[in-house]
Amino acid sequence: MTISDFVAENIDSSKPELPFPTSTKTVAKGGLITDYGQFEENVYFIQSGVMIVSLAYKEEDRILEFYFEGSFCASYSSLISNSPSDVRITAYTDVQLEVAKYADIQKAYETSLLANQLGRYATEQLLLDRVRREKELLTLTAQERYQSLLAKKPELVQQIAIKDLSKYLGVRPESLSRIRRN
Amino acid sequence: MTISDFVAENIDSSKPELPFPTSTKTVAKGGLITDYGQFEENVYFIQSGVMIVSLAYKEEDRILEFYFEGSFCASYSSLISNSPSDVRITAYTDVQLEVAKYADIQKAYETSLLANQLGRYATEQLLLDRVRREKELLTLTAQERYQSLLAKKPELVQQIAIKDLSKYLGVRPESLSRIRRN
Repeated sequence: MTISDFVAENIDSSKPELPFPTSTKTVAKGGLITDYGQFEENVYFIQSGVMIVSLAYKEEDRILEFYFEGSFCASYSSLISNSPSDVRITAYTDVQLEVAKYADIQKAYETSLLANQLGRYATEQLLLDRVRREKELLTLTAQERYQSLLAKKPELVQQIAIKDLSKYLGVRPESLSRIRRN
Repeated sequence: MTISDFVAENIDSSKPELPFPTSTKTVAKGGLITDYGQFEENVYFIQSGVMIVSLAYKEEDRILEFYFEGSFCASYSSLISNSPSDVRITAYTDVQLEVAKYADIQKAYETSLLANQLGRYATEQLLLDRVRREKELLTLTAQERYQSLLAKKPELVQQIAIKDLSKYLGVRPESLSRIRRN
């Protein structure tokens, strides 16, 4: 899936030309895409593979989110507030990415209806995901969060190693193994 | 502050006409704006006062967020995914609101550059706030979250009763009193 396909599916079925240039890039499993402290310059669209966004936390990282094929991914806080990234983005599997420079997107935002429709839509979807996760962190136990994840994103539970799922749910791997047995 | 002022400050300083109609409404302290299970139909802009967004949680509610003058507020998940609201919005003080019907905004999104620029910008700001809060919930203790709040939003700590601050931070009021003494 390409950004053009995403636009055709969600914004404008007439398959208009993208209002900013993009390029493609492959990154091998484990490869670093954006590091802590870096100013994010790009928005990535995942054509294939899985990416993870991590947050530094004591000795080990927390995993904020897994991103799959057909999703946009970037250090958004860094982009939007033009500040050093407090997250790290890495390739969890080999990934094929479509890359748009944020400077080009911002230029398109000045005049392009389509660019703003796409930016608004993609941001709304990100917001829905973050709000859902915040509500779960505030109200569900780790076991309930695991069950919710299993119901909503079964592909995630299958493709992700237990130790990484536990970093996402904020529990120790042993606790997660116990939850899975129940 | 009106939506027009917000647009002039953040989107287009030429003070363009708003691409959707708005009306104003006053709600007395404690008044209900959007209830659990209701389909959200409006977006509210706070011209004066404070609103709170709550989430049902066991015997008592959690407070997801306080919204102040110059902010947009709505049950966004309900709007974006067209589903019953899982949050309740109430007036924490007497409030003066500028109200836009979401149906009118959606119509403007089809053709208006300004409507999409405004929607994108407002959604980006919401996303920044949610991401910040999610990161804090994942990495900070209640005491650290209180200190972060005090540093970033001192007006919130001053205007909000301890029992409500504790619902926002997810701690018991006695714990918050102890944290404040330290």
